[in-house]
Amino acid sequence: MQDPTTEQGGGEARRVRSFSAITSNRIETLTDGVFAIVMTLLVFDIRIPAAEIVAERGLFTALEAVLPNLASYILSFFILGVLWVGHHNQFFYIRRTDRTLLWINMFFMMAVALLPFSAGLLARFGLSDGLALVIYDVNLIVAGLLLFVHWWYATRDNHLLNEEINDKVRRLVVVRVLLPPVLYTVAIGIASFSLAAALAVNVMVPLLYVLPNRVDAIFRRL
Amino acid sequence: MQDPTTEQGGGEARRVRSFSAITSNRIETLTDGVFAIVMTLLVFDIRIPAAEIVAERGLFTALEAVLPNLASYILSFFILGVLWVGHHNQFFYIRRTDRTLLWINMFFMMAVALLPFSAGLLARFGLSDGLALVIYDVNLIVAGLLLFVHWWYATRDNHLLNEEINDKVRRLVVVRVLLPPVLYTVAIGIASFSLAAALAVNVMVPLLYVLPNRVDAIFRRL
Amino acid sequence: MQDPTTEQGGGEARRVRSFSAITSNRIETLTDGVFAIVMTLLVFDIRIPAAEIVAERGLFTALEAVLPNLASYILSFFILGVLWVGHHNQFFYIRRTDRTLLWINMFFMMAVALLPFSAGLLARFGLSDGLALVIYDVNLIVAGLLLFVHWWYATRDNHLLNEEINDKVRRLVVVRVLLPPVLYTVAIGIASFSLAAALAVNVMVPLLYVLPNRVDAIFRRL
Amino acid sequence: MQDPTTEQGGGEARRVRSFSAITSNRIETLTDGVFAIVMTLLVFDIRIPAAEIVAERGLFTALEAVLPNLASYILSFFILGVLWVGHHNQFFYIRRTDRTLLWINMFFMMAVALLPFSAGLLARFGLSDGLALVIYDVNLIVAGLLLFVHWWYATRDNHLLNEEINDKVRRLVVVRVLLPPVLYTVAIGIASFSLAAALAVNVMVPLLYVLPNRVDAIFRRL
Repeated sequence: MQDPTTEQGGGEARRVRSFSAITSNRIETLTDGVFAIVMTLLVFDIRIPAAEIVAERGLFTALEAVLPNLASYILSFFILGVLWVGHHNQFFYIRRTDRTLLWINMFFMMAVALLPFSAGLLARFGLSDGLALVIYDVNLIVAGLLLFVHWWYATRDNHLLNEEINDKVRRLVVVRVLLPPVLYTVAIGIASFSLAAALAVNVMVPLLYVLPNRVDAIFRRL
Repeated sequence: MQDPTTEQGGGEARRVRSFSAITSNRIETLTDGVFAIVMTLLVFDIRIPAAEIVAERGLFTALEAVLPNLASYILSFFILGVLWVGHHNQFFYIRRTDRTLLWINMFFMMAVALLPFSAGLLARFGLSDGLALVIYDVNLIVAGLLLFVHWWYATRDNHLLNEEINDKVRRLVVVRVLLPPVLYTVAIGIASFSLAAALAVNVMVPLLYVLPNRVDAIFRRL
Repeated sequence: MQDPTTEQGGGEARRVRSFSAITSNRIETLTDGVFAIVMTLLVFDIRIPAAEIVAERGLFTALEAVLPNLASYILSFFILGVLWVGHHNQFFYIRRTDRTLLWINMFFMMAVALLPFSAGLLARFGLSDGLALVIYDVNLIVAGLLLFVHWWYATRDNHLLNEEINDKVRRLVVVRVLLPPVLYTVAIGIASFSLAAALAVNVMVPLLYVLPNRVDAIFRRL
Repeated sequence: MQDPTTEQGGGEARRVRSFSAITSNRIETLTDGVFAIVMTLLVFDIRIPAAEIVAERGLFTALEAVLPNLASYILSFFILGVLWVGHHNQFFYIRRTDRTLLWINMFFMMAVALLPFSAGLLARFGLSDGLALVIYDVNLIVAGLLLFVHWWYATRDNHLLNEEINDKVRRLVVVRVLLPPVLYTVAIGIASFSLAAALAVNVMVPLLYVLPNRVDAIFRRL
C-alpha cells in the first residue's frame, strides 16, 4: 500500500513504469511451457504402425518405417535444447521486459511452436525433396535470428538488464547465437548440390552446443 | 503456528479469509499453462500433406493448401499474445483472488482454450463462409469481455489489489481491453457486406497492440 | 553448507527428513500442468466438420453435430475448475508431503487425466447409452474420493500442515469434497430410470461450486 | 548493479560462472512441464470407440478393446511418477547445473517424452509380440540410466550441490535409481521364455516404489 501523500509523482511514475516494464518472470514461465509442449509433441510424429501392416510384415519391419521420424525427433529435440539454453542464458542478464522485447519473444515462440510441423515435413520428405530441408532450416534460421534480435534489443542500453554487462560477454553471446543461423544458411546453399551434406550440417549444429568446446572454454577463461 | 489463546477471532478470520481469498500465484501458473498449450496446439491445424498428394503434385504445390492454416496460426498466435499480455498486466495490480474472480478467470480460460477450434474453422471455411468468421470473432469477443469483467470486478473496490490504483490507469485499461471486442463486433457487422474487409479488421486488431502506438505513448506520459 | 562437526545427528535427521518430506512446491507445479493440459485438450474432442459435409449441408447444419461435444467440453471444464480449486485450497494448509501423500496425488492426477476420454465417451454416447454416463461419473467419483483421501491423510495428524487446523474448517472441507462423489453416485442410481435426470444432476454439481452459496457463506462467517 | 572498480576480477568471475552454472530452477520447471504433458498425453492412446462398432456390438463390448490401452496408461503413469519423484529428490541436493548436467537432463527428458510412443506399442502389440515389450523396457532402461548418470555426475564432487552429501545417502540413491534398469533388463531376458512373466516384472517395478518398503524404512532410520 503506497503512501499517497509523500513522493506522489515519483511513486506514480514507478508504478506505471512497472506496469509497462513487465518483470520477466511470467514470460519465462510461458516460454518454458511452450518449449516443454513442443518437445513432448514432437514424439507424436512417430506413429505407431497399423495393426494390419504389423500382421503382414512383422513389428520389426513395420518399425523401420518410423526411423526417419525417430531421427527427426532426436535432431529437433537437440535443437530445441540449444534454443532453450540460449533463451535461458539471456534471461540471466535480462530482468525486466517492455512491450517490444515481449513481442520479440512472442515471435520467437511462434517460430519454436512451428517446429513440429517443419520436423514432420523433414521426417517424411527430407530424404527425397530438398524443399523440406529448406523449410526446416528457414524455420530454425528465423528462430535463431529472433533470439539474436532478443539479445541485441535487450542489451542495446542497460535499462532492461540485471547488471551491467561486459562487452566480451555481449559479443560472445552474439557469436554463439548467430552461428546456427549462418550454418543453416550454408546448409540451404549446399542442399542443391548434396542433400546428404546439407543433412550432415544439420546434425552437426546441435553437437557444437552439446559437446564441451572451444567457445565453452573461452567462457570458462573469462 | 498460531497461538490459539490470543487474538482467537482475528487470527481465525485472517486464516479463513486467506483460505477463500486465494493468492493469485497458482492461478497465474494455471493460466500461463493454458496459454502455452493453446499457442503450441494451434500448429496442429497445419497438417503435413499426404505422401500421395506430394508424389502427384510435388511438395511445393501440396504446401499451398496449408497457407490458410498458416495464416490462421499466425493471426491466432498474435491474438493470444495480446490476451496474455492483457491478463498479465492486470495481475500486476491484482494480488489476491476470491471465488468470483477465480471463476471469471476459468470462463476466460474456457474461451481461450476454444480458440484452436475456432481458428481451425476460420482456416478451413473463413474465405468461403461468413459463419466461420462470425464464430471466430464471437469467441474473441467473449474472451475479451471476460477479460474486461475480470478487470472490472477486481478493481470495483480495492480489496483484491496490490496497491491503490490510479483512476487514469483504471480507465485506460478499460479502453484497451474493450477496444478489441468492439472492433470484432464491427468485423461481424461488415462480414455480411465484405468478407475480405472483415478479415482485414481481424488482421488489424492485434497489430494495434504489437506496434508502438498512441495508447502506449499515453502510458509512458502518465 | 552444513557444519559437519556440530549437531551431527540433528542436522542429518533434518536433512534426510526433508529429503523424504518433499516440499509441496513442485507437486503443485506438476498438478497445475496436468490440469492446464487436460482443460486445453478437452477442446480436441470438438472436431472441425469435414469439408464434404459442409459442402453438402452447409456449415451451420454441420456444426450442429458438434453441439454435444461443446456441451461436454463446458461441463468438464467446469468440473476441472471445481477439482482444481479444491486441490488448490487444500494446499493452503498442506506445506509438506511424504511418499504416501505424493502417490495419492499421483492417483488423483491419473483420474483427472482420464477425463478427456470419459468426456469424449459422454459427448458421443451419453444421450443414447447410460454406460457412457456411468463411466464419466465413476471417473469423477474416483477423482473426488482421491481428493477426499488426500485431505484426510494430510490432516490426520498435523505434521504435513502449515499451521494447526480448526476442526470446523476440517469438517467443512470434508463435506465440500465428499458432496460431488455422493451426487454422482445418485446420478448413476437414477440413470437407469431417466438419463435426462442423471444428466441434469451432472450439470447441477459444478454450479453448486461456482455460484455463491450457503457453504460459501458459512466460510465467510467463520 | 555491480561496482566496477572494486573486486573487478572476482566479481567478473562470479558473474560469468553464474552465467554458465545455471541455477536449477527453470530446468525443474521445464522438466515438470514435460512430465505433466507426457502423463496427460498417455490418455490419448485410449481411443473412443467408433460409433459404428458401438452401434453393432454395444458400448460395453466395444470398450473391451481399449482395456490393454487402459492398463498401459496406468502402468506408464505409475512409472512416470517413479521417475518424477526420483528426479525431484535429486534436485533436493542439486542447486546449480552446468552445461553437462543440463544436457544429461535433456537426454533424460528425450527418453521420457518417447514413452507415449513405447506405451502405445506395448498396449497394441505387447501381448502378442515380445519386441514391443523389449522396446518399452529399453526406453525405461535408458531413462533410468540417464537418471543414474544425472546423479553420478552431480555428486562426483560437491560443486553443484546444495550442501555436503552423506555417503550413505549417495549410495542409497544409487541403489534406488539403478534397481529399475536392472529389473527391466531381467524382464527383457525372460521375455523370450514367458511374455506373461516379463509383463509381471513390469507391473511389479513401480509397486516397489509406491508401497512403503524396506528401502523407505532405511531412509527413515538414517
